Amino acid sequence: MTQSRQIHLVRRPQGMPRADDFAVVPVETPDAAEGQVQLQALFVSVDPYMRPRLDADQPLDAPMLGSGIARVVQSRHADFKEGDLVRHFSGMQERFVSDGRGLQKLTPDPALPLSVYMHALGGTGITAYGGLLEVGALKDGEQVFVSTAGGAVGSVVAQIAKIKGCRVAGSTGSDDKAAWLRDVAGLDAVINYHKQPLASALREAMPNGIDVYFENVGGEQLDAVLPRMNVRGRIPVCGMISTYNGERAGVKNLSSMIYSRVRMEGFVASDFPHLNAQFQTDMTGWLKSGQIKYQETILDGFERAPEALVGLFEGKNAGKMLVRAAE
Amino acid sequence: MTQSRQIHLVRRPQGMPRADDFAVVPVETPDAAEGQVQLQALFVSVDPYMRPRLDADQPLDAPMLGSGIARVVQSRHADFKEGDLVRHFSGMQERFVSDGRGLQKLTPDPALPLSVYMHALGGTGITAYGGLLEVGALKDGEQVFVSTAGGAVGSVVAQIAKIKGCRVAGSTGSDDKAAWLRDVAGLDAVINYHKQPLASALREAMPNGIDVYFENVGGEQLDAVLPRMNVRGRIPVCGMISTYNGERAGVKNLSSMIYSRVRMEGFVASDFPHLNAQFQTDMTGWLKSGQIKYQETILDGFERAPEALVGLFEGKNAGKMLVRAAE
Repeated sequence: MTQSRQIHLVRRPQGMPRADDFAVVPVETPDAAEGQVQLQALFVSVDPYMRPRLDADQPLDAPMLGSGIARVVQSRHADFKEGDLVRHFSGMQERFVSDGRGLQKLTPDPALPLSVYMHALGGTGITAYGGLLEVGALKDGEQVFVSTAGGAVGSVVAQIAKIKGCRVAGSTGSDDKAAWLRDVAGLDAVINYHKQPLASALREAMPNGIDVYFENVGGEQLDAVLPRMNVRGRIPVCGMISTYNGERAGVKNLSSMIYSRVRMEGFVASDFPHLNAQFQTDMTGWLKSGQIKYQETILDGFERAPEALVGLFEGKNAGKMLVRAAE
Repeated sequence: MTQSRQIHLVRRPQGMPRADDFAVVPVETPDAAEGQVQLQALFVSVDPYMRPRLDADQPLDAPMLGSGIARVVQSRHADFKEGDLVRHFSGMQERFVSDGRGLQKLTPDPALPLSVYMHALGGTGITAYGGLLEVGALKDGEQVFVSTAGGAVGSVVAQIAKIKGCRVAGSTGSDDKAAWLRDVAGLDAVINYHKQPLASALREAMPNGIDVYFENVGGEQLDAVLPRMNVRGRIPVCGMISTYNGERAGVKNLSSMIYSRVRMEGFVASDFPHLNAQFQTDMTGWLKSGQIKYQETILDGFERAPEALVGLFEGKNAGKMLVRAAE
């Protein structure tokens, strides 16, 4: 038996989530029984997809659903030994026991920090890769626009598009992120949507229209983009973060999809198991060569997961937002 | 030289078009010169796609763009003889001369009325056929919902889906159209959106969700449909008539595309030349066997084209709206 903690949702948020919609709950984690392992959380991930679940799928007074990296600290399971690292989808638990189902053993490349397996080499990376290349059917040299380009998914999308020889512009909500995208990630143009009217900024940033719009935001940004889409343009819909917290500005320009034959298609990270091997190879290479750069915002301390999640929705992250629960 | 008439747009409509946005203009049509034909309009088509063009593409004080069926009345062209019938895209002209380019010779099936070549066997037919089967990627037995099911395109879409063994529901704005769709066209359920709240009517009409939503309307209907879409559902976007006259209710439920992996895609009638031969064969057979039924609203008199077009936007048509300019 070990003293540990869980993060629970204790109240469904009204609009923007607040830290006190959650609680840090002390629990006793049992030792691993025969056929089980006990795991210790190292990294806890907070992600935009969690927002809509807070309204429905996420049970109240139970551990928050979510993914992380954990270390095996007790093993009575033939496939695992103490010290093994795993990726899991067992939610926000400081320690937990598992029969091994749903655990994915991780052998990190020693040249890369472990945290990248929670973003560029993890769920957000394959979301970017599959969403852009398969759903977006990107062709080399096309015109690409990415919303929330400073986020964990958007920043990878933008850089993959650059690797594929595209002209790439992105939108973001802060000057710091804009500077990083322009100066470090190498985007051709960056729009700070708090400072520039989107429609005219977009005309200037994408003078040849848009072939692929990687959609993370919805609402006004989608409305500004739709009339700029080129014929047979694609809009992979990864997220619509502007609509998650109740401010639902209706989208008015959908009819421009008709003459432009635009295709808009929703997807989720788990749609791409068939791409995983190629993704791991490509992304490991791009990270090691420095062609894909990343930012992380890591809060230290398991108990800071609610703060991290709320901060994510308030845009306080630069790149991937993570919580480090232990070294 | 022959006295004839043209329909001109003389003022860009403010919101809903009015008859006096148009004028019936007397003109003198020259005789056919060497290499030309002179044509007489038989049927003039009015179509929903014309609405957005009135705001931009359609020149003022020039013949309205559009399609029709005409008869060759003078020929000095090797490929045409007097009495030949053609489909054309030469706009709303009672008589006109042509060098033959853009004329499509028509050999109507004697068992079918000529007017069907302006709808079920014409542009609206192939729009329905290509939009449903190719863009919508319809599979036999799926759940299909069609908006403006009483219209020229929608009524054909709904009946093709029935031929393919689907459960089919449609929406329409009048009890007469609803009765025709249920009793004559054989739809499984019909919603009169003026009388029933869409969301609950849709739950009842489509208890197993929606695999293909054939979109003619946009706005509130799209918002009601989106949460009902099944995983990997398709929304071929043929039109968004609710948005054409300025009442642009924003669409708020697009984020439900994400987890349902819904694909939404715009298209136009001219996207399907590769399907035309199969379409002509299928549709001629379906019309002759009575598997596809249709309604027509035919106004007699070339000068009534503005009335027909305005009536179309006011929903005064049952099925395809046409003007008969001559027998």
